[in-house]
Amino acid sequence: MNLKTETILEQIDDLFNARSVAIIGVPRGFKAGKLFLLALLDQGYTGAIYPVNPLAKDIDGLKCYPTLSAVPGPVDLAIVLTPHDQTLGVVKECAQKGVKGVVLFTAGYKETGTEAGAALEAEIVALARSSGMRLIGPNGMGLYCPKTGLSFFPRLSKVSGPIGLISHSGSLTNILGFMGPRKNLCFSKVVSLGNECDLSTQDLLAYLGQDHDTRVIGAYIEGIQNGPAFLKALRRASLNKPVVLWKMGLTEEGSRAAASHTGAMAGKRPIWEGVVAQGGGIAVEGFEAFADTLMAFSLLPHTIGRRVAVISGPGGLAVSAAEACGKEGLQLADLSAATRQALKALIPAVGTSAQNPVDVGLTASIDIELYIQSVRIAAADPGVDLLVIIGIGLSPEINRHYTEALIQARNEYQKPFVMVNIPGFEPELGQRFCEAGIPFFDSAERAMAGLSRIIQYRQWRQVQTEPDLETEHQCELKGWPKINFPSPAGRLSEYQAKQFLAAHGIPVTREILVRTADELPAAMTFIGYPLVMKGASGAVDHKTEKGIVITDIRTEAEAQAAFHRIMVRLEGDGKAVLVQEMIQGQRELVAGMVRDPQFGPCVMFGLGGIFTEILQDRAFRVAPLLRQDALELMGAIAGRGILEGVRGMPPVDKQALADVLMALGRIGLAHDNIDQIDINPLIIQGDRPVAVDALIILK
Amino acid sequence: MNLKTETILEQIDDLFNARSVAIIGVPRGFKAGKLFLLALLDQGYTGAIYPVNPLAKDIDGLKCYPTLSAVPGPVDLAIVLTPHDQTLGVVKECAQKGVKGVVLFTAGYKETGTEAGAALEAEIVALARSSGMRLIGPNGMGLYCPKTGLSFFPRLSKVSGPIGLISHSGSLTNILGFMGPRKNLCFSKVVSLGNECDLSTQDLLAYLGQDHDTRVIGAYIEGIQNGPAFLKALRRASLNKPVVLWKMGLTEEGSRAAASHTGAMAGKRPIWEGVVAQGGGIAVEGFEAFADTLMAFSLLPHTIGRRVAVISGPGGLAVSAAEACGKEGLQLADLSAATRQALKALIPAVGTSAQNPVDVGLTASIDIELYIQSVRIAAADPGVDLLVIIGIGLSPEINRHYTEALIQARNEYQKPFVMVNIPGFEPELGQRFCEAGIPFFDSAERAMAGLSRIIQYRQWRQVQTEPDLETEHQCELKGWPKINFPSPAGRLSEYQAKQFLAAHGIPVTREILVRTADELPAAMTFIGYPLVMKGASGAVDHKTEKGIVITDIRTEAEAQAAFHRIMVRLEGDGKAVLVQEMIQGQRELVAGMVRDPQFGPCVMFGLGGIFTEILQDRAFRVAPLLRQDALELMGAIAGRGILEGVRGMPPVDKQALADVLMALGRIGLAHDNIDQIDINPLIIQGDRPVAVDALIILK
Repeated sequence: MNLKTETILEQIDDLFNARSVAIIGVPRGFKAGKLFLLALLDQGYTGAIYPVNPLAKDIDGLKCYPTLSAVPGPVDLAIVLTPHDQTLGVVKECAQKGVKGVVLFTAGYKETGTEAGAALEAEIVALARSSGMRLIGPNGMGLYCPKTGLSFFPRLSKVSGPIGLISHSGSLTNILGFMGPRKNLCFSKVVSLGNECDLSTQDLLAYLGQDHDTRVIGAYIEGIQNGPAFLKALRRASLNKPVVLWKMGLTEEGSRAAASHTGAMAGKRPIWEGVVAQGGGIAVEGFEAFADTLMAFSLLPHTIGRRVAVISGPGGLAVSAAEACGKEGLQLADLSAATRQALKALIPAVGTSAQNPVDVGLTASIDIELYIQSVRIAAADPGVDLLVIIGIGLSPEINRHYTEALIQARNEYQKPFVMVNIPGFEPELGQRFCEAGIPFFDSAERAMAGLSRIIQYRQWRQVQTEPDLETEHQCELKGWPKINFPSPAGRLSEYQAKQFLAAHGIPVTREILVRTADELPAAMTFIGYPLVMKGASGAVDHKTEKGIVITDIRTEAEAQAAFHRIMVRLEGDGKAVLVQEMIQGQRELVAGMVRDPQFGPCVMFGLGGIFTEILQDRAFRVAPLLRQDALELMGAIAGRGILEGVRGMPPVDKQALADVLMALGRIGLAHDNIDQIDINPLIIQGDRPVAVDALIILK
Repeated sequence: MNLKTETILEQIDDLFNARSVAIIGVPRGFKAGKLFLLALLDQGYTGAIYPVNPLAKDIDGLKCYPTLSAVPGPVDLAIVLTPHDQTLGVVKECAQKGVKGVVLFTAGYKETGTEAGAALEAEIVALARSSGMRLIGPNGMGLYCPKTGLSFFPRLSKVSGPIGLISHSGSLTNILGFMGPRKNLCFSKVVSLGNECDLSTQDLLAYLGQDHDTRVIGAYIEGIQNGPAFLKALRRASLNKPVVLWKMGLTEEGSRAAASHTGAMAGKRPIWEGVVAQGGGIAVEGFEAFADTLMAFSLLPHTIGRRVAVISGPGGLAVSAAEACGKEGLQLADLSAATRQALKALIPAVGTSAQNPVDVGLTASIDIELYIQSVRIAAADPGVDLLVIIGIGLSPEINRHYTEALIQARNEYQKPFVMVNIPGFEPELGQRFCEAGIPFFDSAERAMAGLSRIIQYRQWRQVQTEPDLETEHQCELKGWPKINFPSPAGRLSEYQAKQFLAAHGIPVTREILVRTADELPAAMTFIGYPLVMKGASGAVDHKTEKGIVITDIRTEAEAQAAFHRIMVRLEGDGKAVLVQEMIQGQRELVAGMVRDPQFGPCVMFGLGGIFTEILQDRAFRVAPLLRQDALELMGAIAGRGILEGVRGMPPVDKQALADVLMALGRIGLAHDNIDQIDINPLIIQGDRPVAVDALIILK
């Protein structure tokens, strides 16, 4: 961690621990801005609160100041509610007052899509930077921290807990803070970032990643401004604790909505999937999945196993829980003979099952002890890692007893329990389970999905070697030649592209550029049969479609004929024929480099040949790639089986393939003037990849 | 509809309209069996109720009879609660009494996995059949019908409604019947089938499909006993009304659980997906999706358009609703200029959006009219098909006003409204929306998924030509020769297989079987160059892996050499070489026929060549295939783009390909002794498919 990062983390910490807050522009009447004042009062904030409004002497019983400079003591945090056209003046005042951080609530900046809005935002940022203040927003609600009493909305939970939350939407943090107690979602530190003109998602990821009050991080993200910094912060935080990510802008509809909400830039789903995989994030889609996953990570240990025992009375829900278990990659635990024996002795003989899922039968809704004792028997089985319980009694009294008995059993057996709601369960009982650390999911499908995400995180964490990212991510870029090819078409020819790739360590076909028939015999001898000839005029783009690629040439006569056939069909200047060894291999891949507007150079890998466009089976990783990233990238495509020993072909040399992918990332970082690289096909010859055709597009 | 079907439908109708019910083996005390009696009393059943128990004079104030024959009047429906070892005698008594239908509640039959259990079940069925009685169960709960007062569990809703429900799980029907009023899920006729030893899912599909009280059908299915009959019933019902299917047993875990619950047989997911597509079903996974979809279909018109306007206060939820909209294939409506103008005039200038999704801003939580008026403005826009509304006020009073105002707006504009829950919304308000016919979903993601399923059904229904299924499904099978090849290996040789396929109209490679070098020249002349030679001994299985396939032979000398090379490598008797035209084409497909234990012969289609196993990109349809089924099957694989004009290749002749797929289905139906057919590769030459290699496995 460099000094700058440390400074930012201290600055953020200062804001969450602000000892005085000024609310500038707080309205006298009951308007939206009033909620900020009500929020601090409701949360019991013990620091100084300074309402600022030139038109009022006091507001809601608090003395009101005409200007910020009129406030007697120091102000750590200023919440600015004035319209955007007055904000610049107010921020100047904040700087003069020595405020540490400013929350800009008002909208009207970048998200309007106007130049004026963006310019104003930039001016405010420049001002803050020059005076050492940090900004949150604009179009954001600021900080909520039950421990220090900061809040931006009344009636949010007052209980501190393990969840750190970063959000581009203020209302989402309100809703979670409001519903929190029902699911025991308790927050350490919450920030609503809005347009994040200054403090950004990655700054907060870095902060919460090392915050001792935070055990799990959630982030609702509309857009990412500095992709590489975000990825680095994500990976670093994920090494310490799970980071649950709900990302907008992965569909066209969502992108447009995000742009008009917080000025966020759209992202591409496959790139985002690569970022999540590289950074160890846990990606979810939808509010329910987001809240469920935060609940699971905050209530359950992160070391749970995958052997699940399901205890259910409703037979259909038992079966559907088993189905969901299989779908999410969990296992139904094999109950021991002793466990099955004990269950058989307990539950009725017919209409039940002493196998897993345990179906205790309809009678259990009358005799609730059948549930309780079955749960105890299963919990005692050493082959069971955790219990998923689906059951309910016929009256509120029975269910209160049931709830406490299950909590007691969990405490005795010290094994994770998970409850599944059955409509009709009293909501307060669900809340009681959550308070006791037993997550209460609305359905078996959602319970299994939540558990599976914990296991997914555990697996990612286990294989991380914790390389020193700073060192590891440095790559040897010095001394590489810049591209210096003539390129009137804005791109390199196949021959030039492959020369360039070869110079960077990527294996390519042996080939010679031939301009006259006289040069052919020497080329033939050098390359050897069978060979391929391709027209090489700069004007030609889709070679296979214009009859200027001839394969499997076996004699000099065939070669001469092919040469003339191609030359006749070529158009434009610089006609030539590329004489190329013919690579034998049925496995055609594609590899390349693209520049993502948010994440910079990214390496692409997928199925090649005619399947490139048809299947779009490709995945991405952000450059630079660790060797581990490259190996995971190969495993991220649906057709990954092609890399194994199929149909008598040897398994692909994955280290050699990783070298190609890592080289493409390094090239992307080193050569700003390359916009895109496509190696297609990258054919597997024997067990090693060879670039058979390549396209390099320059900026 | 044939006479037998009509009879079954009348028999089922008689059961739902039973005028007297005997409960045989009803317990005196409060045990599970007592719930059946309590259910009828609770539901206000007005027919005669006859408790039968030899040990009691009366039960819960009702006169009790020692035996069924002691009951004075006729008995339409008998609910049998006696243990399974007494059931046979009781069912005999029912037959003597002239009972119309028997519900067998007790378990202990096929689902135990024992021979004795299955045998007892079969004996009971035989007895019932011979006496014209219908059976429900065993291991099932029977009938719930608010209109006639039948019920199997106390406290189920007493309100009749449009949903017909078929379930292998009794508890699932209880839960839906119990929670129903909260979401306005109201049922016409519900049946809990258990092991379905007699009346089956397809019988009930046929019944509910033509039932005038039923507008949407839901089915929770653990297993299917007669696949073709099920498919026929599904398709017929789907032509009349939507059928929502929640199927278990698509994972290994779920299959095992379903087997021990109702003795159901496991199914394969890709076959099931084919069945759903052919039958027009709406497949869902999970309890929430099942309930959501039933709610959507029962409250909304089935003709909704896809242009959605989202009205939201919470900006983050607006963005996520837009995202879900895109993901589910719905469209965000383009609001007219007038609509946007009116919205701009209404809502605050900053921190909002007058685009779709409409973000009315934080202020709306204080000024609820902003929501109400925005909804009215959007509802008036002719470019908007339906409204999805996400918003809430700060107090219960405000929200009651809000609810009624939105219901009124819906009534005025006569456009479908959909509400999305925000945690904190009072549950009774959600119930009020549903009562008014406005579905209330727990999240935007689930709302969009529900809407998308309605549109999916509408689309399916629109393209159905309503062929007379009985006629259409007849296919010309007469006069086809049975296979009469020698097949010591239990399978046909490539040559035999292709002769057989060709005889059934499937285009295959031209080829000649050659046993001696003398026969070669004539074969060369007949086939023409380039050609392929393949070893044809019966002992060889994976040809490409043993060096006995030589392609691209261009001269007689090459042919002679190849012949000898192959003959030397062949083992066993009957050595020969297949001389075959070489099919030129980059597009390799696979087509075939498999026998599914539940659905019988199914046609398989997918990507072939080396991708067959790697991508497993294949789909299935049950034989026989309508032409429309064959065309849809081609569109059901991920790589369907390969059939279009790609890389300069012509689009595939889909009618020719459909002929192949339909022929495979007919062969499967006509030839019981064929277990499996694999045509791989089926190469596209030009635009037409040719079977290049084929395997036929006999039973």
